Amino acid sequence: MPDRIYNFAAGPCTLPLPALEEAQANFVNYKNTGMSLFETSHRSTTYDDIHMGAIQLLRDVYHIPETHKIIMLGGGATLQFTMIPMNFLGEGKFAEYVNTGTWGTKALKDAQIIGDAREIATGKDSNFMNIPKDYTVNQDAAYLHITTNNTIKGTQLHEMPDAGNVPIIADMSSDFLSRPVDWSKIGMAYGGAQKNLGPAGMAVVIIRDDMMEKANKNLTAYMRYDIHASKYSMYNTPPMFPIYMMNLVLEWVRDNGGLEQMDKNADERCGILYDIIDEYGDYYSCPVAKEDRSRMNVAFRLPTEELEKKFVAEALERGMSSLKGHRSVGGCRASLYNAMPIEGAEKLGRFMLKFMAANPK
Amino acid sequence: MPDRIYNFAAGPCTLPLPALEEAQANFVNYKNTGMSLFETSHRSTTYDDIHMGAIQLLRDVYHIPETHKIIMLGGGATLQFTMIPMNFLGEGKFAEYVNTGTWGTKALKDAQIIGDAREIATGKDSNFMNIPKDYTVNQDAAYLHITTNNTIKGTQLHEMPDAGNVPIIADMSSDFLSRPVDWSKIGMAYGGAQKNLGPAGMAVVIIRDDMMEKANKNLTAYMRYDIHASKYSMYNTPPMFPIYMMNLVLEWVRDNGGLEQMDKNADERCGILYDIIDEYGDYYSCPVAKEDRSRMNVAFRLPTEELEKKFVAEALERGMSSLKGHRSVGGCRASLYNAMPIEGAEKLGRFMLKFMAANPK
Repeated sequence: MPDRIYNFAAGPCTLPLPALEEAQANFVNYKNTGMSLFETSHRSTTYDDIHMGAIQLLRDVYHIPETHKIIMLGGGATLQFTMIPMNFLGEGKFAEYVNTGTWGTKALKDAQIIGDAREIATGKDSNFMNIPKDYTVNQDAAYLHITTNNTIKGTQLHEMPDAGNVPIIADMSSDFLSRPVDWSKIGMAYGGAQKNLGPAGMAVVIIRDDMMEKANKNLTAYMRYDIHASKYSMYNTPPMFPIYMMNLVLEWVRDNGGLEQMDKNADERCGILYDIIDEYGDYYSCPVAKEDRSRMNVAFRLPTEELEKKFVAEALERGMSSLKGHRSVGGCRASLYNAMPIEGAEKLGRFMLKFMAANPK
Repeated sequence: MPDRIYNFAAGPCTLPLPALEEAQANFVNYKNTGMSLFETSHRSTTYDDIHMGAIQLLRDVYHIPETHKIIMLGGGATLQFTMIPMNFLGEGKFAEYVNTGTWGTKALKDAQIIGDAREIATGKDSNFMNIPKDYTVNQDAAYLHITTNNTIKGTQLHEMPDAGNVPIIADMSSDFLSRPVDWSKIGMAYGGAQKNLGPAGMAVVIIRDDMMEKANKNLTAYMRYDIHASKYSMYNTPPMFPIYMMNLVLEWVRDNGGLEQMDKNADERCGILYDIIDEYGDYYSCPVAKEDRSRMNVAFRLPTEELEKKFVAEALERGMSSLKGHRSVGGCRASLYNAMPIEGAEKLGRFMLKFMAANPK
């Protein structure tokens, strides 16, 4: 295996090499403190600089206005499926959910255990191969919940729905920090860190102040966004490693053209693959509705399952890993997060052409 | 600063150097996979070996019987303050809490938001400088909650209370894996990892099968111990870094005499400091009731606050860090977790004697 391969995993996924190298260099003796960062008190100034720096850098890079607070906490996006209805679905309230796949289904199911959560649209009839857009949001709803990108199916919402005055709560786990967001439309965005932000082990929540004010206050401490926000995500010992790594990843984003360049790169990378899929549609095919194709996760099929297996295996031999599709979908999937170099997509594209030539159907 | 100092922080805290060095060596290119471990799918065999290995190794080293399941999940011990009453304090039930300080108070407060949680004993009158032991457990209680060690005050429970048939739920965050446990008495033990187990970012829960069966099933997925257990803590993307580091720490414990040696070392380390405190009681003093002194966190005072400041500063110059007491207690505190070498306690002991000689009161 080469020292560094192109890793197309859906998350946890490829991270910027300079961030990894800096973490390695400082791992045992953090900047000459005589200890590792992970042995340092989370109340130390050494750690505090990283922690507060990560919050500020995310705000800067992602252009998050002061109307929204940034919270980092353990439990991943899955814990948010619980915290959201606990906070916003009290007695006499209801929320609306648009179901776009595995993650939307899980979020909805958890919310229905807690309160009146209504599925107003679902892509189930198409096996979630398109994103439902034909619905009207009830203006009495407490919130509208959407999932902006679906790693498993390879679909993505390319435009925020019109929810009127209803606050949108968006699970952005898999397209966080990949494109500009109109934050004025977002009541709360959240996501697991393990795609564009860093390693697994925390969720990032971006929440508008009026949402926190409206939230249920009769909750235990960990469940309350306002407590986490007022303590700058230090109410309890934070997940220091993902926060540290996110800080390094954000520095890399900032130094490599920022959000705007990440956005352009995403178009370029997925364009290379979708162009091949469309041009050689009798060999490669994408099961997803064209207008809903994800820029982050390109799902594609080959003529037979046997060829798909061979494709994945030969790609690995050539230094391109994790191209097998999710077990619930089959086929192949190339995940193209911010840290995937353009060269990775180019190399994969060339391999697709060569493989097709060498393995006629 | 020397490359490696003796770090007496209360947690996050000192970790075994060989574990840190192995993590550093493998950080960017994990065992020649061409990627970092934190870029690897949590469903990969590479990660699975670590994950399942950590669970098995904890079982082996800590002598945990098959009657108990081991769960690793994000959110730290603080999230457990919520999950415990959600699972076990349903309609018509009550639980009893023994309050031994900051963490016991927080656990109780969260439980009272959810259900009928009763404080049956508290050390508040002594400012938590002793552990209350004079109480009887109501045999109708759903559980008895205790905190076995208190980092802030420097107290420790040296014998499990007699709870009769009531299951004990023990927050063992700060003395996890420091002494043998009679697991037959424990319904559930839990703790944040960031003391004897590894870095911050997860809780470890050890739970008896009958507790999971009794738990409330009408909960969201993340809140359910049975779901985490049945998925081997892979229901959602796990906090991979603390799990990986815990595995390395456990290998170090196993290779250095196991739990029994950790237990002996704890006695030896704290003995060095308490002996000095007792012998020179007109200079050093320990505010904690003698029978309740912690083996993990040795709290002590000097004759004046000025001398305490000087002591902490001069110790740091000599390569011994983080000796300042918690802001709510003042004075000094030396935390002596498993990874603290005996030599660290010896060096601190010598410094205490020299400092006293050089700075008469």
